[in-house]
Amino acid sequence: MKSIKVGLLGIGTVGSGTFNVLQRNQQEIARRAGRGIEITMVAARNTARATELTQGQVKVVNDGNLVVNDPEIDIVVELIGGDDIARDLVLKAIANGKHVVTANKALIAKHGNEIFKAAQEKGVMVAFEAAVAGGIPIIKALREGLTANRIQWVAGIINGTTNFILSEMRDKGLDFDVVLKEAQRLGYAEADPTFDIEGVDAAHKLTIMASIAFGIPVQFDKAHVEGITKLQASDITYAEKLGYRIKLLGITRQTAKGIELRVHPTLIPASRLIANVEGAMNAVVVRGDAVGEALYYGKGAGSEPTASAVIADLVDITRLATADPEHHVPSLAFQLNAMADTPVLPMSEVVTSYYLRIRVADQAGVLADVTRILADSTISIDAMLQKEPAEGEQQTDIIMLTHQTQEKNIEAAIAKIESLATVVGQVTKIRLEELS
Amino acid sequence: MKSIKVGLLGIGTVGSGTFNVLQRNQQEIARRAGRGIEITMVAARNTARATELTQGQVKVVNDGNLVVNDPEIDIVVELIGGDDIARDLVLKAIANGKHVVTANKALIAKHGNEIFKAAQEKGVMVAFEAAVAGGIPIIKALREGLTANRIQWVAGIINGTTNFILSEMRDKGLDFDVVLKEAQRLGYAEADPTFDIEGVDAAHKLTIMASIAFGIPVQFDKAHVEGITKLQASDITYAEKLGYRIKLLGITRQTAKGIELRVHPTLIPASRLIANVEGAMNAVVVRGDAVGEALYYGKGAGSEPTASAVIADLVDITRLATADPEHHVPSLAFQLNAMADTPVLPMSEVVTSYYLRIRVADQAGVLADVTRILADSTISIDAMLQKEPAEGEQQTDIIMLTHQTQEKNIEAAIAKIESLATVVGQVTKIRLEELS
Repeated sequence: MKSIKVGLLGIGTVGSGTFNVLQRNQQEIARRAGRGIEITMVAARNTARATELTQGQVKVVNDGNLVVNDPEIDIVVELIGGDDIARDLVLKAIANGKHVVTANKALIAKHGNEIFKAAQEKGVMVAFEAAVAGGIPIIKALREGLTANRIQWVAGIINGTTNFILSEMRDKGLDFDVVLKEAQRLGYAEADPTFDIEGVDAAHKLTIMASIAFGIPVQFDKAHVEGITKLQASDITYAEKLGYRIKLLGITRQTAKGIELRVHPTLIPASRLIANVEGAMNAVVVRGDAVGEALYYGKGAGSEPTASAVIADLVDITRLATADPEHHVPSLAFQLNAMADTPVLPMSEVVTSYYLRIRVADQAGVLADVTRILADSTISIDAMLQKEPAEGEQQTDIIMLTHQTQEKNIEAAIAKIESLATVVGQVTKIRLEELS
Repeated sequence: MKSIKVGLLGIGTVGSGTFNVLQRNQQEIARRAGRGIEITMVAARNTARATELTQGQVKVVNDGNLVVNDPEIDIVVELIGGDDIARDLVLKAIANGKHVVTANKALIAKHGNEIFKAAQEKGVMVAFEAAVAGGIPIIKALREGLTANRIQWVAGIINGTTNFILSEMRDKGLDFDVVLKEAQRLGYAEADPTFDIEGVDAAHKLTIMASIAFGIPVQFDKAHVEGITKLQASDITYAEKLGYRIKLLGITRQTAKGIELRVHPTLIPASRLIANVEGAMNAVVVRGDAVGEALYYGKGAGSEPTASAVIADLVDITRLATADPEHHVPSLAFQLNAMADTPVLPMSEVVTSYYLRIRVADQAGVLADVTRILADSTISIDAMLQKEPAEGEQQTDIIMLTHQTQEKNIEAAIAKIESLATVVGQVTKIRLEELS
């Protein structure tokens, strides 16, 4: 059977990884796919560089339209990033009857509904394993491996940059700014790290996982997004003393009222496997009603781990390319005509536990005032830690872990605590999940 | 579209779990599969019990032939176990043009080649996610998620009974026999636990994973199988002191000379994520050349976790039931006409590191004799531990960790060590893997 012809849009880190792995393992891949998979065309702004990367073996053009309009191309791989030109080219490829593979989480999180609808109408497949947690086949696990389950929640370390920073902060007791600079030097953080450290990248990925887990349209605009820039080394130390680690988690949960969709720093018990995921690694925990808890761990980014996901999608499409379009595996796990309209809950409605760090004047009665406010708000305290003030200091930290309460309830209590004369500055609030 | 009709062969723990989960989550599952999946017939020896378990909603028969011959049935789920009647019925179902789902690892490990060939000839699918590590979709991950990779090795905790026993032995410092009784009382070990504790169950599962990872036929008879019955509490303690945990691992690795296929107790560094998998949980680590290391963790057995895998296979088949048979995903990941004849290495050819516990008379010169024998065999020592003899005792233990060497080389050295007059009884040898 003749090879499947693939056209790449963009050939940066992931694109060149895809080219290299496809070349290196071409025999092994053909033995699995049943036929060869061949990149025959690449669109790139820097055509000289693209020619060099593909060793002159591939037709290089400087306009993506030439790829999506080429009648020889079976599958278009979109690796441009962003959601402007990428969206336009992906929709054109679909309109031309081509299958699409993309690593673009922003594109899927923001324009997925439009793209999948177009793909269904044309009977083509759109695959995006590489968009979430690179080397972990989490899309496939959720979409195909756990189809028996009512998924209860998904919680993941899905951004390597922030996990690297948090690991280093804990390991070396350093502050955020210092570690960020180190991460940039080592290539774990980009020159402009905003999308990573502010949680936007994780929220894109979480939005996609929520859709596949619960059968709802992608709704990135409803996600609560909070990064790690305000975390202090002391919070990590206090959490450690109480038996917890702080990780930037993406959490999505189905509750009776609606779906939680939130990215924020989170205390998790140090004994959980996911709490021990260090450095730039990713991990996702899924809880299903039949399967219980499952964890998937691997590299979340990088040239070849991401290429591994792109190529897995190429093999999937190759294996099923001539199959009846009615019987493709649905892109979002659920059939498009069976999506639910379950609402995404605003953050104020979310119920969880909290870590509070309260800076107070070292005076009698402060603790009584704080605990009274919490009691009046029916927030119960699970654990407490009070440091002796350092030599010559007049202030100290009170750390409290609360039982579960609604976010708007803790917010109201915090406002009252901050208005106490003995409380200094703002209360630090970090959410806490037992993940059990 | 009308429902897919499923017939069950056997309705024990997994069968009733499958019935219950399919009923409870029927809407969710139909939204994913695109049509209903319905158990319409069950064959069981105890028909009264089967009628009770299925709440009188399903036709119950006492002969599996009635299921595999029923023209209404689309998919046969084999949950009988063993490889005698099960093989016969599965082959009949295939001959009748029915797709097959099975949780039977012995059947696949021993008769997979025959079964997959028959299935290919008839253009039907045979799926067996439930046969390996129940709730972990490891078959799907290897067969579809990691298709870009040249798999280098797979190492897994794939038997919950033995992992529970080892966790308890370490946690409570108890001996094997004591913990086995407790495991039996708690239902973690069967009345006849031989298949679990002797490593046979793990070897069935490993055989299947090796086939899918490397594209070789299933070859259970070539597996090296060693259980945990000879492990002593002291070995676990010594390993702990040296920074290692002992786990029963199934390991399969592609080397230049051939494929390793072995189940045995193994020391692994305590810092590895897989070393921290406790109780009856399962975990599999896969190393691929593109993806690096990935770990999958979850429940390996039990009614609903295993049912989760059975139903995932049912959904897969339902989604692709009317697709062109040429384009199914191949059962063993590689196309049947592209299987390799890479040999499975005998254990004597395997290269790994070792933990040795040598019981010696507390005399000068013993250590010199032992280290000389190792040096003469070009086996280098990585770490050593020598205990002071207990008060009033004349004997003590020497513990050594070696660097890598060939199994036949260490065996020869051990024979020489055992022949020393100062060495008491047999040397305990446990293999050690860094898994990096």
